[in-house]
Amino acid sequence: MLEDLKKAVYEANMMLPKHNLVTFTWGNVSGIDRESGIFAIKPSGVPYEELSPEKMVLVNLEGKVVEGDLNPSSDTPTHVELYKAFSDIGGVVHTHSIYATSWAQAGRDIPCYGTTHADYFYGNIPCLRVLTKEEIEDAYEKNTGLLITDYFEKSGRKPLEVPGVLCKNHGPFAWGKDPAEAVHNAVVMEVCAQMAYQCELINSHVAPAPQSLQDKHYSRKHGANAYYGQKKK
Amino acid sequence: MLEDLKKAVYEANMMLPKHNLVTFTWGNVSGIDRESGIFAIKPSGVPYEELSPEKMVLVNLEGKVVEGDLNPSSDTPTHVELYKAFSDIGGVVHTHSIYATSWAQAGRDIPCYGTTHADYFYGNIPCLRVLTKEEIEDAYEKNTGLLITDYFEKSGRKPLEVPGVLCKNHGPFAWGKDPAEAVHNAVVMEVCAQMAYQCELINSHVAPAPQSLQDKHYSRKHGANAYYGQKKK
Amino acid sequence: MLEDLKKAVYEANMMLPKHNLVTFTWGNVSGIDRESGIFAIKPSGVPYEELSPEKMVLVNLEGKVVEGDLNPSSDTPTHVELYKAFSDIGGVVHTHSIYATSWAQAGRDIPCYGTTHADYFYGNIPCLRVLTKEEIEDAYEKNTGLLITDYFEKSGRKPLEVPGVLCKNHGPFAWGKDPAEAVHNAVVMEVCAQMAYQCELINSHVAPAPQSLQDKHYSRKHGANAYYGQKKK
Amino acid sequence: MLEDLKKAVYEANMMLPKHNLVTFTWGNVSGIDRESGIFAIKPSGVPYEELSPEKMVLVNLEGKVVEGDLNPSSDTPTHVELYKAFSDIGGVVHTHSIYATSWAQAGRDIPCYGTTHADYFYGNIPCLRVLTKEEIEDAYEKNTGLLITDYFEKSGRKPLEVPGVLCKNHGPFAWGKDPAEAVHNAVVMEVCAQMAYQCELINSHVAPAPQSLQDKHYSRKHGANAYYGQKKK
Repeated sequence: MLEDLKKAVYEANMMLPKHNLVTFTWGNVSGIDRESGIFAIKPSGVPYEELSPEKMVLVNLEGKVVEGDLNPSSDTPTHVELYKAFSDIGGVVHTHSIYATSWAQAGRDIPCYGTTHADYFYGNIPCLRVLTKEEIEDAYEKNTGLLITDYFEKSGRKPLEVPGVLCKNHGPFAWGKDPAEAVHNAVVMEVCAQMAYQCELINSHVAPAPQSLQDKHYSRKHGANAYYGQKKK
Repeated sequence: MLEDLKKAVYEANMMLPKHNLVTFTWGNVSGIDRESGIFAIKPSGVPYEELSPEKMVLVNLEGKVVEGDLNPSSDTPTHVELYKAFSDIGGVVHTHSIYATSWAQAGRDIPCYGTTHADYFYGNIPCLRVLTKEEIEDAYEKNTGLLITDYFEKSGRKPLEVPGVLCKNHGPFAWGKDPAEAVHNAVVMEVCAQMAYQCELINSHVAPAPQSLQDKHYSRKHGANAYYGQKKK
Repeated sequence: MLEDLKKAVYEANMMLPKHNLVTFTWGNVSGIDRESGIFAIKPSGVPYEELSPEKMVLVNLEGKVVEGDLNPSSDTPTHVELYKAFSDIGGVVHTHSIYATSWAQAGRDIPCYGTTHADYFYGNIPCLRVLTKEEIEDAYEKNTGLLITDYFEKSGRKPLEVPGVLCKNHGPFAWGKDPAEAVHNAVVMEVCAQMAYQCELINSHVAPAPQSLQDKHYSRKHGANAYYGQKKK
Repeated sequence: MLEDLKKAVYEANMMLPKHNLVTFTWGNVSGIDRESGIFAIKPSGVPYEELSPEKMVLVNLEGKVVEGDLNPSSDTPTHVELYKAFSDIGGVVHTHSIYATSWAQAGRDIPCYGTTHADYFYGNIPCLRVLTKEEIEDAYEKNTGLLITDYFEKSGRKPLEVPGVLCKNHGPFAWGKDPAEAVHNAVVMEVCAQMAYQCELINSHVAPAPQSLQDKHYSRKHGANAYYGQKKK
């Protein structure tokens, strides 16, 4: 069932160690088949070197396992909420990547200091508040998802224009049109997190990049007038 | 004698270079067989690429070599004290890993700034005082062990809930249920040390993660209600 | 057509991932044949592992593609301006390398703090202003090139003595006598950017290296009295 | 002539890229045969991947090439002075390794913050002043050597107890009983430079390790009562 999806999700998971985004099993990627409303996700706590496409767990949008012997990632309820609220995304990723997590622990948004950031994220990468004691004890992973979707609803920002956030004292979540793009955006967030960290240490009075430059770079890669890369066939 | 133990200790030692925790021979792992009260430990000063299971040295809890032609690690008396005082641990590791050692040199506890830390260490990772001149000259390695065991006795913290400490101006010691888990915890400490370092440079007023979040994450992975990972068969 | 040039440009592009100067496709190298006034450049957005000499795109100094099915790098108009204004350069490279880009985001020149820098760059590595809204909207990549060439014209500095600059909120451009030397200089800039960053954190009152030391090291490697390396046959 | 020495010097040079101490050709190792007063040294500007034992250049203590078609390292006159003044050393190395060079650029001694440092360097690693304009123009490399030997003569410190120094605005020199030990000490200096850098950022008021701890660790590895490692046969 959904063999292509499981393969794509498997391959996206394997990109995490390749891009140095994970230590041990601290990360997970999922990808959804919108027609059936079923997504494939990494099994919980299984080392990357032991993964295979068949070990991906299939879950529906009520969070129920529909195929697979293994427990799905403990963050599965977060993925469910993101898929339910963000109808245009096809993949979700969570990691504890070093630099993005350092910003999350510091409790700060990552400002847009340059074109590397602006090429992928339109505006800052927000750091969302920590959950309350009640939210944590009630349904931690689900409430993490609701916190994220609530942010986008209230801010009016678009999930595919800001394809990732930080959760305070925790770490990054990212997404994209498919699992591979979700991981791609997680790599971008990590690189931008490192650059922003270093940038502030080089110049403690640094300001974000001018809006006109941010607009230019974002539109070079996104939207009707994008001209970066090769034409899709 | 104790071939399985020597193999496990050998393999745990080889994880140190794999996880970039050691330069040259600056690290050692041991593992104990509680029935016989004998532990296997890396020989002193032997390069990792020259190690083999047979070269592991067997030592009893009086610190006497019971098998092996090579000198055991010079830190052996520290391991002895840890095994004697912490009856539920099965492996011990010492390294000079870069970030944890930087915190040890700085003489500061590593605060719990996020879930990466809370998943494995319940509360801060303490930095213990430097030994006195007398303690150093009398029995340096043994007194290092006693300093650690004394800390846990006096603080009431539990060794398996705080599976590692820093020794001021020296470096980290970590432990676990077995040699592999001890190394696992040493890797976690190194990653958390790097994140905490960066986190404070991003936000000099950062506070530890809320207790409710620390509790939640620690209990996701430990204790009767843990739900991370796969059920052990 | 120009097979040797395309091969040299291909090989120089492949040096970018080898020296950790690029994430994904965030970099491009070109090299020019001065006789024909045609340069070869990386195609836009194509992953490095899919590149081959045949995929290099040939472009003339009016910025028109003269051979190749793929779109050239979106930064092609910048390369055009550099080749037109700097008659003694033979290769150009642009990357988002981590440390140099952090300085560009910080909006600061990289001071010459030591001989590593002085061996290749005579004086500081300037960080040029961000383009105006009008310059960005009018012809962004071309105006980036003009900003760089204008700097050298007005400052009187020589492009081969200062073989690279930072563009504020963007990243580094570097060049050299040929594509390989351009990449070599981009690596030097990245290393010097890292050292200068760390140097200022070690000593916040640090001053540039004395001029006599800068002169000595630059002249050891460049000019009539250079004595570093082997005599060219 | 001196084939074993050339092989040992070749192998020690190849340890520089292996331990990430060099970018391009920015480093050189030599080793001396005290009987003949001849030392082997890396040829100038030759990439490491093109080196072989036969390409090592033999030089006498007057700095004259006695065998080899290639130019010796441009730093050869520095090596000459070190061998002449330090009768108990057998190998010398110079690099531009990232962290040690950052300290050299910052113009600061590296304090002894812990046992990693104390295991190999007795006391701080001194940063020597920059040469005067006259010293630079007169005989730069020779005067660099004299500056180093002069420091040891005046301070009364012993070269094998402090097996390396920083030259301000330049980088590290290290040495040892043979070429391999010289490189070993250069690696130690780089690691200690990184730890000291991070340590000061974690605690801006940090003090050096207590003298009793420094004494203990240095004597664990050096001198008549050393007990680290295996007994030499």
